Amino acid sequence: MMEAVQIRHRHLLDLEDWSASEIESLWRTTDAMVEVMQRKVKKVPALQGLTIVTLFFENSTRTRLSFERAAKAQSAEVLNFAAGGSSLSKGESLKDTLKAIDAMQADLYVVRHGVAGTPHQLSRWTDAAIVNAGDGRRAHPTQALLDGYTFRQGFRGFDGFRGKRLVIVGDVMHSRVARSNIGLWTKLGAEVVLCGPRTLLPTELGHWPGVQRCFRLEEAVEGAHAVMALRMQRERMQSGLFPSLSEYQARYQLTAKVMEHAHPDALVMHPGPMNRDVEIEGVLADSPRSVIEQQVANGVPVRMAVLYSLLVGRAR
Amino acid sequence: MMEAVQIRHRHLLDLEDWSASEIESLWRTTDAMVEVMQRKVKKVPALQGLTIVTLFFENSTRTRLSFERAAKAQSAEVLNFAAGGSSLSKGESLKDTLKAIDAMQADLYVVRHGVAGTPHQLSRWTDAAIVNAGDGRRAHPTQALLDGYTFRQGFRGFDGFRGKRLVIVGDVMHSRVARSNIGLWTKLGAEVVLCGPRTLLPTELGHWPGVQRCFRLEEAVEGAHAVMALRMQRERMQSGLFPSLSEYQARYQLTAKVMEHAHPDALVMHPGPMNRDVEIEGVLADSPRSVIEQQVANGVPVRMAVLYSLLVGRAR
Amino acid sequence: MMEAVQIRHRHLLDLEDWSASEIESLWRTTDAMVEVMQRKVKKVPALQGLTIVTLFFENSTRTRLSFERAAKAQSAEVLNFAAGGSSLSKGESLKDTLKAIDAMQADLYVVRHGVAGTPHQLSRWTDAAIVNAGDGRRAHPTQALLDGYTFRQGFRGFDGFRGKRLVIVGDVMHSRVARSNIGLWTKLGAEVVLCGPRTLLPTELGHWPGVQRCFRLEEAVEGAHAVMALRMQRERMQSGLFPSLSEYQARYQLTAKVMEHAHPDALVMHPGPMNRDVEIEGVLADSPRSVIEQQVANGVPVRMAVLYSLLVGRAR
Repeated sequence: MMEAVQIRHRHLLDLEDWSASEIESLWRTTDAMVEVMQRKVKKVPALQGLTIVTLFFENSTRTRLSFERAAKAQSAEVLNFAAGGSSLSKGESLKDTLKAIDAMQADLYVVRHGVAGTPHQLSRWTDAAIVNAGDGRRAHPTQALLDGYTFRQGFRGFDGFRGKRLVIVGDVMHSRVARSNIGLWTKLGAEVVLCGPRTLLPTELGHWPGVQRCFRLEEAVEGAHAVMALRMQRERMQSGLFPSLSEYQARYQLTAKVMEHAHPDALVMHPGPMNRDVEIEGVLADSPRSVIEQQVANGVPVRMAVLYSLLVGRAR
Repeated sequence: MMEAVQIRHRHLLDLEDWSASEIESLWRTTDAMVEVMQRKVKKVPALQGLTIVTLFFENSTRTRLSFERAAKAQSAEVLNFAAGGSSLSKGESLKDTLKAIDAMQADLYVVRHGVAGTPHQLSRWTDAAIVNAGDGRRAHPTQALLDGYTFRQGFRGFDGFRGKRLVIVGDVMHSRVARSNIGLWTKLGAEVVLCGPRTLLPTELGHWPGVQRCFRLEEAVEGAHAVMALRMQRERMQSGLFPSLSEYQARYQLTAKVMEHAHPDALVMHPGPMNRDVEIEGVLADSPRSVIEQQVANGVPVRMAVLYSLLVGRAR
Repeated sequence: MMEAVQIRHRHLLDLEDWSASEIESLWRTTDAMVEVMQRKVKKVPALQGLTIVTLFFENSTRTRLSFERAAKAQSAEVLNFAAGGSSLSKGESLKDTLKAIDAMQADLYVVRHGVAGTPHQLSRWTDAAIVNAGDGRRAHPTQALLDGYTFRQGFRGFDGFRGKRLVIVGDVMHSRVARSNIGLWTKLGAEVVLCGPRTLLPTELGHWPGVQRCFRLEEAVEGAHAVMALRMQRERMQSGLFPSLSEYQARYQLTAKVMEHAHPDALVMHPGPMNRDVEIEGVLADSPRSVIEQQVANGVPVRMAVLYSLLVGRAR
């Protein structure tokens, strides 16, 4: 079914060491998966006989289900390990816990953990493949892959990333989604502008090649081809880093009016889940400018392609 | 395997708009499913390649497992979404949550929600089929279908619903099981008598065609062909609508003695889970009059028939 | 694939009534399962079409997953019933709950319960097979089977159980793992020495044939062929039965130094999860003496053999 891909990685820990052509190869596999999901029977035998374990040390029903669907649509078995109820809470070490889980002899683990670097650490303790489903504030590579894939689909005639301008608005500091997207888009030749209150835009990110910081939203979106609003985590609002909610809305909410400053065909994006009328105007999210539903729709095909590429389509 | 059924509905939201012949058609499919579940290998390939997602915004391990078994016995894939741990609790709208889940591209959602009408609303936002597994106090159609199917099995020679008399005893006000059974049995030509304390028998239900209210249990069961005790929800006992537990037991507990007033072959029913010796005498539940185990046994075959009829056997 | 086994039991409730040759037969099946799990595709169709329900009234993610993997590796369907969220908490009786679950028409239940004897009780209420995954302090037969299987694998040339000496160290009183291992090893001709503070070594266990108690660790391990440290449950430390943590570590922690008193080839074992440097020295657990990783690795194959033997390979 699938054309040969040349991905040499055993794991998807982050995108830093994936080349632009490896990413393009993964997206071509995604194209094939999008086609599978448009069939009447949305199931192929590609991963028959293989076992995938989801290891979520941080809760995320939605991301877990997306991986579970991506695995089952390719006929893999899935086991879910929700770490809350496990022996970790009984004082066992992370390594011993993984060794115990590794006795399941899974072919691939999908790992989410609140501590940055945990998936990397786990990859040293098992022979199975590891997919990072989010670690601390560090990386969330499948989210960036699906965001980038959505842009690559060529809505409104945009062709490729080179010379394009992505604006990311909001709480960049706490966002692994922002970090993974910055890495991906700049690698592919786009410029990234980060926008938000000064307290939420880490200085060092502004020093990355191809990245700028900007504290005024109208100015930031000037000439942008895509603008992505980040989720505001209400639980972080008390931290002292944030302005008041009404001040945030006044200055940084992404609205139809703000989008008038962007490229006339610019895409509105959001990684979800949205707080409507907090970080993004509800009507804008539902407008023709928005590709948010498309991002959501691409989650399963991109994850199908990741699982397929690591387990079956990998260069050896 | 299955004879042609002529169900024109895309969803099972409630039974109001299902005709008597559609219900009979679904029960004929149930007959075939009962036969499947008596085989040594209780699995058929009817739903191979299809994906069913359970969306339980209200917890119910038992009902969820019953649907999961019904799906897997027909070789469907099942994904479980327990809404407690989801993004809904992070302030996302119900519609955005469903859109995100709908990216799983499921063929059918089984939905339970505390707010009446939610499954109907969801049916407008997705192309997938929806089965209502209980919404607020409004409807629980698969429970009524299994209760009715149990009566239709013809225990003690009863043949059909016309001219029969069903008594429902207890907290009718809060019961979606009662509402769905009232609708089903009266549609098929039975009379329904509601019995319980005045505070728990809504006046308007007494005005439905074929329905009466009665406040004395011995009188209510006079000539009844089936008597169904409803579960007493202990957590509602403090609400002021209830008499004391001992007063309730004295006046409305369904006992062998009370059943002496009913038709000599009358069936004792309960939708479960039972509080033995609260709303029903324990020995009566275990007596030959009781078809409670049969109701429980019919849960999976009826749900198999619902899934099959909506996904495969539907008129187009 | 499998040679004929002659296990006459319908259930695995405990090992008391399993003969030595039945256990050996189950371990020969385990040998075949170990081979399956070394293949590239770790899945066989042995239990295709069968349904296994895990019924965990006590939480144990790891043991549940091990059974789930063992079932899915043989192509069985698995349904998980976590009893916390169930109707049991709504006042329903255990028997009624099981009757409701039994409507799933499962072929086998894997049951864990905090009350000793529950799996035996359930076996009287269903036609399905029951596997005890731990009941109170009574038994945990699959753990003992995997511990024994690990010893039988013949590390360092040990051949068989007759004349061998197993030492179990720690909180024997609260340990179903200890009780099941005592029964298994003595049945196969080994001697068992129990070691720990006097308050944690029940007098009656010292009267079992082939079992001794010993309160000094160096003395207990004298000439031992295997030494198993039991997990210290921190939540039990306040109970008054325990010495202080530092006193416990000083007198009963299993260390490399203590192991110098044992047979030079003696195996170090632990049923997991470990508290490193509490009941066992961390470096000892990782040393070549330790077969702890091997125990962990044997969990799935032993449970595969149990499921296979009860469902397919049973004498009839």
